[in-house]
Amino acid sequence: MHPNRALIGVPGGRADLATPALVLDLAAFEHNLAAMAAAARASGLALRPHAKTHKCQAIAARQLAAGAIGLCVAKTGEAEALASTPGLRSLLVTSPVIGASALARLAGVAARLPELLVAVDSDAGARALSTAATRAGVRIGAVVDIDPGIHRTGVAGPAAAAALARTVANLPGLWFAGLQCYAGHAQHIEDFATRAEIARMALADMAAAADMLRDEGLPPPMLTGGGTGTFAQEAGFGVLTELQAGSYVFMDVEYDAVALEAGSAGPFRAALFVDARVISANTADFVTVDAGYKSFATDGPKPRVVAGAPADSEFAFMGDEHGAIFAALPLGGLVRLQAPHCDPTVNLHDVIHVLDGDTLVDIWPVEARGRSA
Amino acid sequence: MHPNRALIGVPGGRADLATPALVLDLAAFEHNLAAMAAAARASGLALRPHAKTHKCQAIAARQLAAGAIGLCVAKTGEAEALASTPGLRSLLVTSPVIGASALARLAGVAARLPELLVAVDSDAGARALSTAATRAGVRIGAVVDIDPGIHRTGVAGPAAAAALARTVANLPGLWFAGLQCYAGHAQHIEDFATRAEIARMALADMAAAADMLRDEGLPPPMLTGGGTGTFAQEAGFGVLTELQAGSYVFMDVEYDAVALEAGSAGPFRAALFVDARVISANTADFVTVDAGYKSFATDGPKPRVVAGAPADSEFAFMGDEHGAIFAALPLGGLVRLQAPHCDPTVNLHDVIHVLDGDTLVDIWPVEARGRSA
Repeated sequence: MHPNRALIGVPGGRADLATPALVLDLAAFEHNLAAMAAAARASGLALRPHAKTHKCQAIAARQLAAGAIGLCVAKTGEAEALASTPGLRSLLVTSPVIGASALARLAGVAARLPELLVAVDSDAGARALSTAATRAGVRIGAVVDIDPGIHRTGVAGPAAAAALARTVANLPGLWFAGLQCYAGHAQHIEDFATRAEIARMALADMAAAADMLRDEGLPPPMLTGGGTGTFAQEAGFGVLTELQAGSYVFMDVEYDAVALEAGSAGPFRAALFVDARVISANTADFVTVDAGYKSFATDGPKPRVVAGAPADSEFAFMGDEHGAIFAALPLGGLVRLQAPHCDPTVNLHDVIHVLDGDTLVDIWPVEARGRSA
Repeated sequence: MHPNRALIGVPGGRADLATPALVLDLAAFEHNLAAMAAAARASGLALRPHAKTHKCQAIAARQLAAGAIGLCVAKTGEAEALASTPGLRSLLVTSPVIGASALARLAGVAARLPELLVAVDSDAGARALSTAATRAGVRIGAVVDIDPGIHRTGVAGPAAAAALARTVANLPGLWFAGLQCYAGHAQHIEDFATRAEIARMALADMAAAADMLRDEGLPPPMLTGGGTGTFAQEAGFGVLTELQAGSYVFMDVEYDAVALEAGSAGPFRAALFVDARVISANTADFVTVDAGYKSFATDGPKPRVVAGAPADSEFAFMGDEHGAIFAALPLGGLVRLQAPHCDPTVNLHDVIHVLDGDTLVDIWPVEARGRSA
């Protein structure tokens, strides 16, 4: 049993948390859920949130209850861990899956769900997926992934996309489920207009491929893409039929630097934090807290101090297990730090502590944590 | 059951691994185990390896079987997860533990082991530890932590160390178990002589504190410290009675840059890797593999390609789930990458795949993964 479980429902129980603790501000999270559901409805797009962000069935179930038509995941292991999410009918694996054992596991997930969709970006990959599906006696929807210009995954340009769509439409065990184009490189560009232009260019290839396929009688059932940093622009381009945004549920220090709407910070609030505790206070300039490289993502900006210390107190990493807060704080004091980059921060933690103010109201397992394979 | 478990014992089974997979080269690991055991014996020092590196009972048990007198851990959660390691008699928590709930859990660990030792660096912390021990009816060895100049944890200077030693010697439920000084700031200094000088200065305070305590009839039973980067120097200073080195079992890209002995790379070999798979190969300059920020530590150097691609092929992160290898490789090909910084890389993975050449011989759970609280 998690050591903090005994604190659920205890008023002010936050003070006694075993730390470091990954915490979710329930009010901010519920606000973000509702804000994205409303934005998708207003734009006439379906919402299929990316669960690579949270890896958590409790959050996924709430997204579905708020109107999401399904979920995205990045990896086979995430698909396995989240397939039993209550209310889930359609799951999209957004990266190509290569390798016989992984494909056999994917086919196993397909057997558990009304609809499994998988990104493909090569003939060889599509044929291997077809083989795995037919062996398992399932049908998998193949989504042709279009390279938005990052060259991470995807085929290059509309003609290659249309050709691969024709291939998958004719392979046993597969059906052609649509096109995907995710402008990952645009998400964190701080300038609104530049970000919009890069996202628009990426979607132009998708629109052209869709036109080609419609002309030849193979219309793509869906056009999927978009992220928290670009959905507001992309919704206006008239290309996508559904949005894959994920980070909006949490936000993070990285996304806070991005203007999500022209001239505004967008409708979302910071909801994901790590509560850390002062465990040493023997020096003049800073105190030491019990959270370091093993509690925060280190690929992006630094964690930001948001409570428990004077405004603008700086955090600095002090190794794997520790950090410094440049402030005079008492031994045992709690400091709240906003997650720097939400996805890889969540991936460090087994559970999410759900807090209503200073009261712990629930502990949600992160079922797909570490399921990168 | 882990998806790779079916491959155990299958000759050449590595080719079918679900990837990314954290892998241990068994021969290199066993070499490192024996080399450090021999180095400690040759220097007349006891070895108490730091288990924050591996968080894994199977590795800890092998260290104990090779002659280690006990283990170090950094956190209460690690102590709980590793207390049942076969052969473990003495466990040292090397950072101060603050907070009533964590201290109560520590006292619970003390009840499960012949000897639990805990670092203290404040009067208030020592008194709270005493209270938790007496409440639980256990005795805990308090180890006075001396600041080596990092100001992360520890008391400043020999007089403060001796004073805190006298305090803990008189507190109920505690006994004075010795002094700790870990020169964490010296471990990765590339120049041998500079590193030796910084380690020597840090240990001078510890030697002075030990002399003061011997003079007043409170001799420290042990003087603990040292890391993989400094043990060869520190063993020669005649201060420490035991070494806390941990990273030597794995080594990593970071430690490979450090001359561990004067004029040599030291006795250890790279043993910890991530095997990743090419999942997209549609572009001219590089291929995409299935490992990114969620599979490698990002606080230090980059992962280093060691097999499956031409020598000196570069790796670049391509986001949370992906990386680029700048080489022409076939779809589905396996690439082996050396872990950049071992401790936080292990902390991302639930299991360690033990490989003898291309045969998977075992899968070891990382019991203390994520146990930062």
